[in-house]
Amino acid sequence: MSLLVIGTVAFDAIETPFGKTDKIVGGAATYAGLAASYFYDKVNIVAVVGDDFPAEEIADFNAHNINTDGLQIKAGEKSFFWSGKYHNDMNSRDTLVTDLNVLADFDPIIPESYQDCEYLMLGNLSPQVQQTVIKRLKNRPKLIVMDTMNFWMDIALDDLLETIKMVDVLTINDAEARQLSGEYSLVKAANKILAMGPKYLIIKKGEHGALLFHEDHIFSAPALPLAEVFDPTGAGDTFAGGFIGYMAKVGTVNFNNMKNAIIFGSALASFCVEKFGTEKIKNLTDEEVAARVQQFVQLSSFEI
Amino acid sequence: MSLLVIGTVAFDAIETPFGKTDKIVGGAATYAGLAASYFYDKVNIVAVVGDDFPAEEIADFNAHNINTDGLQIKAGEKSFFWSGKYHNDMNSRDTLVTDLNVLADFDPIIPESYQDCEYLMLGNLSPQVQQTVIKRLKNRPKLIVMDTMNFWMDIALDDLLETIKMVDVLTINDAEARQLSGEYSLVKAANKILAMGPKYLIIKKGEHGALLFHEDHIFSAPALPLAEVFDPTGAGDTFAGGFIGYMAKVGTVNFNNMKNAIIFGSALASFCVEKFGTEKIKNLTDEEVAARVQQFVQLSSFEI
Repeated sequence: MSLLVIGTVAFDAIETPFGKTDKIVGGAATYAGLAASYFYDKVNIVAVVGDDFPAEEIADFNAHNINTDGLQIKAGEKSFFWSGKYHNDMNSRDTLVTDLNVLADFDPIIPESYQDCEYLMLGNLSPQVQQTVIKRLKNRPKLIVMDTMNFWMDIALDDLLETIKMVDVLTINDAEARQLSGEYSLVKAANKILAMGPKYLIIKKGEHGALLFHEDHIFSAPALPLAEVFDPTGAGDTFAGGFIGYMAKVGTVNFNNMKNAIIFGSALASFCVEKFGTEKIKNLTDEEVAARVQQFVQLSSFEI
Repeated sequence: MSLLVIGTVAFDAIETPFGKTDKIVGGAATYAGLAASYFYDKVNIVAVVGDDFPAEEIADFNAHNINTDGLQIKAGEKSFFWSGKYHNDMNSRDTLVTDLNVLADFDPIIPESYQDCEYLMLGNLSPQVQQTVIKRLKNRPKLIVMDTMNFWMDIALDDLLETIKMVDVLTINDAEARQLSGEYSLVKAANKILAMGPKYLIIKKGEHGALLFHEDHIFSAPALPLAEVFDPTGAGDTFAGGFIGYMAKVGTVNFNNMKNAIIFGSALASFCVEKFGTEKIKNLTDEEVAARVQQFVQLSSFEI
């Protein structure tokens, strides 16, 4: 039994009002894998990098009990590189550079040792690649969570709709939910998206928290109000990784466990934005995570 | 012992993507008074209207146990009139008409019978008028809640800052908190605003709920996700009225009671937006309110 994360492992160069970085390690699978590793110790990664990717970064994954047998290293090629600049409000950003490099023809090969996958996190990648991973698993995982973004809605909507049908949980942000459904009201948007296939929909609202929709049930999770958001990069991936990592830990898929999983995912995401890149979420203790989760409890509990 | 609401009692003409109204009754004191009346039966109003204001609307207040001895009726003058048009997202609107009429020289006279005021709701009005009301009360109320808006920050900031110093709770929206503090982060904004005098700050975030700040404590209340927001007019006033009405009912001012008061206020506000004007919040049963509050409990509760 294991948890499989697919997504990018890559380089980012980030500029925020607080500073800028040179190339640092990022990517959806990096953030999601690290986040999941705080709750579950059989995390496997499928991703692709070039031979410019530092061996010590791979060792870092392994130090977090993340299995990298499925991390393809392409000799003579370069890792995916993204560069972006955040605006003052930290809610919008401009993409400065996107160099696909190894990602251009990524073929997600699943090592045989990963075939015991029960929990599958499809990090943001082309819906084609996401779908290929589902098809290459001999047994359908107990829980498939899929993250995606507006980019794929723009250029690969048919593939996206086909892949969405195959998953249990879809995570997108509020603007993406509106784009995908054509509805402004998030309740109406959620109803339309749930009719597309997934049994659960998580709408991420950044500093406003997240909403979980399932049948007629809605759960509203708060975001932790922070004095400083240093770098939002990877917060959504960290959220998703924490979410599925917690689900794998508890082992039973139901609405109540998902509510808690959203709180644990949100707690990790709240750490993520406090430093550049993975700096903060690489070095957390279980006590720090538990204390942050208690802050969420304090923040949103009332007794009526 | 009584609860005093000051604010406008007025006419609105509203256009939303769902339709438009002729002149209907609105105003901060109307919404706040009606909302408070669901929790507390000694609600007094101080406001001013012209003799164009229908007697049956005043009778409607009285039917809700709202005392209108402090409602001045100016012979030969017209009531305050506002007209606005909401954009498709319902979060922004254009003001089409603002006719101050009787409001231009409103002198808030407090009837002697209102001097037992323990709970004071200063609905949105000029900070000068709000301050006059505080000064005219012989005993300082146990709890003073003040609502205001960006308009007063633009044209009467000094008066506003002076009045803010005198109140216990300030309610403003997120954009206004940012404007008043000059800080983008709501945590930093809250710290600056709490340093201006009020012991509690409520930041209203519309469809994203509300935040309560007090010393180092933060409470995040959800908003009920709604399929249709028919007309947002008065939602903030309804929230404030429900908030202070609940506080008056429980009678003890502390953070835990305020958390509940925010939920009750939010529940009433969620009704308010379901119909034009006061149509919905005029005709609620206690059972409907209780059921709606339970929806908020369901929406945000989790067990970790």
